[in-house]
Amino acid sequence: MERIPPCSGRAIELDAGDELVVIDPMGQQVSDLTAFARDDLDEYLSSGRSIDYAAKLWLSTGDVLYSNRSRPMFTIAEDTCGRHDFTLTPCSKEMFEKLYDERPGRPGCEGNLATALAPWGIGRDRVPVAFNIFMHVAMDPATGAVAVLPPLSRAGDHVRLRAEMPLVVAMTACSAGQSNNFSYKPIDFRVERAVARA
Amino acid sequence: MERIPPCSGRAIELDAGDELVVIDPMGQQVSDLTAFARDDLDEYLSSGRSIDYAAKLWLSTGDVLYSNRSRPMFTIAEDTCGRHDFTLTPCSKEMFEKLYDERPGRPGCEGNLATALAPWGIGRDRVPVAFNIFMHVAMDPATGAVAVLPPLSRAGDHVRLRAEMPLVVAMTACSAGQSNNFSYKPIDFRVERAVARA
Repeated sequence: MERIPPCSGRAIELDAGDELVVIDPMGQQVSDLTAFARDDLDEYLSSGRSIDYAAKLWLSTGDVLYSNRSRPMFTIAEDTCGRHDFTLTPCSKEMFEKLYDERPGRPGCEGNLATALAPWGIGRDRVPVAFNIFMHVAMDPATGAVAVLPPLSRAGDHVRLRAEMPLVVAMTACSAGQSNNFSYKPIDFRVERAVARA
Repeated sequence: MERIPPCSGRAIELDAGDELVVIDPMGQQVSDLTAFARDDLDEYLSSGRSIDYAAKLWLSTGDVLYSNRSRPMFTIAEDTCGRHDFTLTPCSKEMFEKLYDERPGRPGCEGNLATALAPWGIGRDRVPVAFNIFMHVAMDPATGAVAVLPPLSRAGDHVRLRAEMPLVVAMTACSAGQSNNFSYKPIDFRVERAVARA
């Protein structure tokens, strides 16, 4: 088990068949996750493709996360929480300035993802809408209004993602107070390698 | 007034202050629109930023469409329809194969946007979640299920977008039957130049 300290990020490489377990160790924390195909880093995790193919906003067990090229990147093999967001970009310096009136804004998940992805040459401009694990975004179906609510995750809740291709994956312990009920906790993860199971 | 023929795309350049009017001339047609900053084409129209700052999924008059760098790209100056989508990626060859069982799939809005953007060196991988003008996507707030319904636009409905920076803008007359009630109509547009009004 590895720990992502509060308000930071990590990136790792996965092979096809590896399983990444993302855990909320204390409850009510969010992890923004994005991914790129190791064979061609122009292929990235796409919210719009994944929502279109699943025909739902909120993905859970059995659903597939697709790339911009419509290829499966992950399958959600297990999900003990059941509610995540796939519509919002990671919190960023500019977001903290605009929505939280912080001067200057902190790097946020966007900056932390970019720092983690720097060894692969992936900068801030290429951090897309993330799969925001445990993030609880409610929608009003009449007006389309969205509200960021405290996560539904309790201590120990986790999501198991099976890699469907060789990937670079980056994830965070979220820096935005509204997303994590102003608790700024860590996120834990572990990788179960396909080769070790074989 | 210019016409985008059914199942095709166009790209144009705008200066700050120019207004782009996108018109549904016959009703129930969708136009997928995306944009890039002319000064640095790595800056692009971001669904996730725009939804986050507006705190709603469905943007309309007075709302701002933001770039991935959190800068305003457009303001919606006028909107006679009131319902558009900003969650789904443009229809694509792979989408037609997966969801419509077409073999081979047509290029779709993604391919048509990429063809239109080719003179600026922007390829298919860089076509993000688009602002899908007149696209009617309904959400079930309990399950998150999304349904693509016939557009609410009637003949002559239009959206007026004021450019807030120099832009390359690409837009389509949508190729996906479910999005346009299987009518595959054209889209009209006109540009009102700031310099002509001055």
